[in-house]
Amino acid sequence: MRQIFHDELEQIASDLVELAGLVATAIRQSTEALLEADVQLADRVIEGDRAIDDRRNDLDARSVDLLARQAPVASDLRTVVASMRMSSDLERMGDLARHVAQVARMRYPEQAVPTELRETFMRMGSIAERIVTEVAAVILSQDVAAAGEIERIDDELDVLHREMFTLLAEGAWQHGTTSAVDVALLSRYFERFGDHAVTVARRVNFLVTGQAGAVELPEESERS
Amino acid sequence: MRQIFHDELEQIASDLVELAGLVATAIRQSTEALLEADVQLADRVIEGDRAIDDRRNDLDARSVDLLARQAPVASDLRTVVASMRMSSDLERMGDLARHVAQVARMRYPEQAVPTELRETFMRMGSIAERIVTEVAAVILSQDVAAAGEIERIDDELDVLHREMFTLLAEGAWQHGTTSAVDVALLSRYFERFGDHAVTVARRVNFLVTGQAGAVELPEESERS
Repeated sequence: MRQIFHDELEQIASDLVELAGLVATAIRQSTEALLEADVQLADRVIEGDRAIDDRRNDLDARSVDLLARQAPVASDLRTVVASMRMSSDLERMGDLARHVAQVARMRYPEQAVPTELRETFMRMGSIAERIVTEVAAVILSQDVAAAGEIERIDDELDVLHREMFTLLAEGAWQHGTTSAVDVALLSRYFERFGDHAVTVARRVNFLVTGQAGAVELPEESERS
Repeated sequence: MRQIFHDELEQIASDLVELAGLVATAIRQSTEALLEADVQLADRVIEGDRAIDDRRNDLDARSVDLLARQAPVASDLRTVVASMRMSSDLERMGDLARHVAQVARMRYPEQAVPTELRETFMRMGSIAERIVTEVAAVILSQDVAAAGEIERIDDELDVLHREMFTLLAEGAWQHGTTSAVDVALLSRYFERFGDHAVTVARRVNFLVTGQAGAVELPEESERS
């Protein structure tokens, strides 16, 4: 019985990792769709978000089923509950990738991002993809040190997000209102990838160390 | 044993209602802080968000404790799991109220919202407050018809959100970039109150009818 339970817990962890993999792909593709004004790729991300939602719903249904059949307590129970919360963060990251793709789609055949900001958004996309890949590794390894590294990567995203808002300040911006609004929302989406990744990492940290700390979303920067 | 369990479930429902009440107050106060450029009130909302987070953490801890002690199955288990998800949506609505207050604080002593948009934001704030108040009633009453009413109220928010983005379109906007970005983000925050309320209502609906439907966040409008 106990062995079956632990096999099932491992299956849930491995499904979370797979979910994170789907999200990493969605982030990479949505960034590319945005920067290349690739409407087919944007549509693929938008369509693909359903698969992420379905995967998350399956995972949660199995977690609830596990609770019902095995009635775990103590750390086993906390692990199942934490898994359901992590799946929620990952699913939300999938939504954010969809939002990025939707901006690309809406501006097509125009570029949503002014030329001189392409580089910054490319970096944000690449950091966001890296952070969710790291998250997958942390879920598997339960490595608390790596969980700390995720907070450091998130700081990089926050710095870029603040830079973006400096560029949007009165007088500095030369690309009109629509573009300013697009850039503000896009920058916020990328910054939120980081927040959700940090939340997942903190949940892993909590499971391993039992130290509560802040398991909710980190404080977002004031401007976001 | 069973009676105690149901008393505890009722306590959790009544705590959710209380949490919704705190969120309704935060929404009302953050809207007022925004429209009156009232920095003291903004600070109260920002500070008060911690109480909402704490309340949610307490509630979730008791839900986990209930799972551990009582090992509920079937609909009882689904109710506890759904409660944890609802608390997460309500807590996130508290964050959104904090974001609104932070915009008010950042622009103080200026007004963040141009004069001719005050009326629209006042309506958005009032609808958002109403929708969370309705959500509290639905959690208590488990009234499926009222849950449907929440989707209708959310539509009102969506309409105002789309109107706002029409005003932000190229050529129409006369208030500069900073203000455009503020208005875009604020409008998105208010629109998101509605999405989270709908999610909570659908969870109640699911508990009562057993009809899954979409229990995740509703599709957001493309532009948000």
